[in-house]
Amino acid sequence: MSSPQTHIPPPVEAEVPRRPARGQLADGREILYFFDAPLDHGDFEPPGDPRHLPSRPPAAELRRDPLTGEWVSFAAHRQTRTHLPPADECPLCPSGDHRATEIPAGDYDVVVFENRFPSFGPGQRDQVLGDGLGDTFPAHGRCEVIAFGAVHGDSFGDLPLERARTVVDAWAQRTAELSVLPGVEQVFAFENRGAQIGVTLHHPHGQIYSYPYVTPRTLTQLEQARTHRARTGRNLMQDVLDFELAAVTRIVERSEHFTVFVPFAARMPIEVHVVPHRHVADLAGLTAAERADLAEVYLRLIRGVDALYPTPTPYIAAWFQAPVHHPDAGELRLHLQLTSPRRAEDKLKYLAGSEAAMGAFIGDVTPESTAARLRAALRLVKGSPA
Amino acid sequence: MSSPQTHIPPPVEAEVPRRPARGQLADGREILYFFDAPLDHGDFEPPGDPRHLPSRPPAAELRRDPLTGEWVSFAAHRQTRTHLPPADECPLCPSGDHRATEIPAGDYDVVVFENRFPSFGPGQRDQVLGDGLGDTFPAHGRCEVIAFGAVHGDSFGDLPLERARTVVDAWAQRTAELSVLPGVEQVFAFENRGAQIGVTLHHPHGQIYSYPYVTPRTLTQLEQARTHRARTGRNLMQDVLDFELAAVTRIVERSEHFTVFVPFAARMPIEVHVVPHRHVADLAGLTAAERADLAEVYLRLIRGVDALYPTPTPYIAAWFQAPVHHPDAGELRLHLQLTSPRRAEDKLKYLAGSEAAMGAFIGDVTPESTAARLRAALRLVKGSPA
Repeated sequence: MSSPQTHIPPPVEAEVPRRPARGQLADGREILYFFDAPLDHGDFEPPGDPRHLPSRPPAAELRRDPLTGEWVSFAAHRQTRTHLPPADECPLCPSGDHRATEIPAGDYDVVVFENRFPSFGPGQRDQVLGDGLGDTFPAHGRCEVIAFGAVHGDSFGDLPLERARTVVDAWAQRTAELSVLPGVEQVFAFENRGAQIGVTLHHPHGQIYSYPYVTPRTLTQLEQARTHRARTGRNLMQDVLDFELAAVTRIVERSEHFTVFVPFAARMPIEVHVVPHRHVADLAGLTAAERADLAEVYLRLIRGVDALYPTPTPYIAAWFQAPVHHPDAGELRLHLQLTSPRRAEDKLKYLAGSEAAMGAFIGDVTPESTAARLRAALRLVKGSPA
Repeated sequence: MSSPQTHIPPPVEAEVPRRPARGQLADGREILYFFDAPLDHGDFEPPGDPRHLPSRPPAAELRRDPLTGEWVSFAAHRQTRTHLPPADECPLCPSGDHRATEIPAGDYDVVVFENRFPSFGPGQRDQVLGDGLGDTFPAHGRCEVIAFGAVHGDSFGDLPLERARTVVDAWAQRTAELSVLPGVEQVFAFENRGAQIGVTLHHPHGQIYSYPYVTPRTLTQLEQARTHRARTGRNLMQDVLDFELAAVTRIVERSEHFTVFVPFAARMPIEVHVVPHRHVADLAGLTAAERADLAEVYLRLIRGVDALYPTPTPYIAAWFQAPVHHPDAGELRLHLQLTSPRRAEDKLKYLAGSEAAMGAFIGDVTPESTAARLRAALRLVKGSPA
């Protein structure tokens, strides 16, 4: 077991991740361009957006579920959002001579922009959310789309390593910047991949949500970490990491700064966690060396998941980050939870009665067998560590 | 607002629901027959099971997720469970001259039997579940299948009222009997309907789980109800019911003993709750008059949901019942949560990054509009109250 962890990570040695070039879309939304070669584009001028767009919708409505205390955002305008457009109508492709997309530039490496159909925002929260029956609030916050590249047919696993680095740097930059917006309680970067899990755009992209509350799953983790600290004096995630390293059987891979493993009680048929060795709250707190290492580890993991089956595997890649203001936030460590419902080549796990209604999960495969399959798949991926 | 509720419901006036006839399957599993006409079958003798079945699998393995404190059951034998068999191989059809199914009788009204591929059981829990890292336990408990009738092509909404009454009575009888098994903490009756949400057998049926722990969602409800009581001195569900009745707009229907409404913060595109007017812990605590009323209300609701679209709507019908031993159990009231991911005729809501990883729900439609659509659909259902 490790020595006790401090509550608050040491003063951040993190170098500022690369700075984006900033532009604006026709309806006032912000767009940011990140470049693989940061020294190359000093004179890049974000092009204007030639479109005439309707005004942005008002913020959605937040309601608190009295039976659980959890917030639900009602974003009715999302019902009409773009749904699996053909490639020649893709809003994430670069703009061309005959078509203006969400991205006015003719080419790009990584672009982040505010979602046109956001679950949270526009606007920042300026009031404390109540806890009575029937309270409603504007769903302030901010939702961003992050496009991983200009090539429509790519997926994350197709990207070169320098692009994966740009993506990790962009996530870190966005986390730093969004965390200080008024009323933002938690920043969540994620990628949904695959039409089987509801992806509505095939162009390789992810999303970044800034919530005006601490999410239910994070509250549960905070409570567990607090209880663990009170009982043992130690940080929960450090003990989990030490436990998995000692158990060996679920470890998928290790790098200098990160360990990749299938967790002891994995809920989903494919579930992999990536945990940093140093106690760090979020992507913004990583050093440049850690970010570079993470880009490599993450890209290999995605390629490994893609090597499990002859066809691409749907997944959710979710970056768990410490909330911004919660008193126990210092207990939470940045980590990735990558999950997939694929339980066989032609079968998905569905979250039915027990999982959906009761939150009680039934696993079909052991975490140890999933780890063994992922280790085998990763051996097929180029650039494996010796 | 109502007057304060007592913690513990008044002594149960519930009459014992009808008694089943009991038989045994070839591998020792119990099977129970319930009849629509209880006076008619005094001499029904459950037929023997002519099959040679392999021994029952050992109980699955329970593991506790250290990050959330939640239990996950690993039932690897379920990977090979029957998956969408053709009608002539359906295990829930009655047995015939040339084929022996899970149900040895040649006809039946309602049958309950122990699941051949259970998530919990066989066996009852005989130890306290631990809370250390890496503890494993046999997933004791009991999982039952309830078949709603002998006709393969039926769905619940096709059943006559007397059959719906038999089903409600069977749920009540099973809740009473399973609640007193050693180690059972919570009894959960539910129906998953529709291949779109993962149903693996089309014959009309539901399931009854007896968990060896209190489920995560129930723990959250208990904590909210406890907090509400401490703050207001009142029962949470009674206040929710009063709140919905006063708001009017989300009420779908009312009967003498139950109110049907779309909740203020519904998570799913279709979500309806059915709440009894009397504070009662579970289906076993209902009086005969309440059970008869509930059968009518529930059957109408299912038919209304089926009338929303030209094709059948997938749904999860989940009976929330108070846990058996929890100190705050007296605060929880029996209620139904019926949910469907269908957000348009040809579109499903998927639980992707925000919902699946963070537990943060984004709704597409307002609860008020869902309630209006359900009221209109119910007007099309025969046997409407005036």
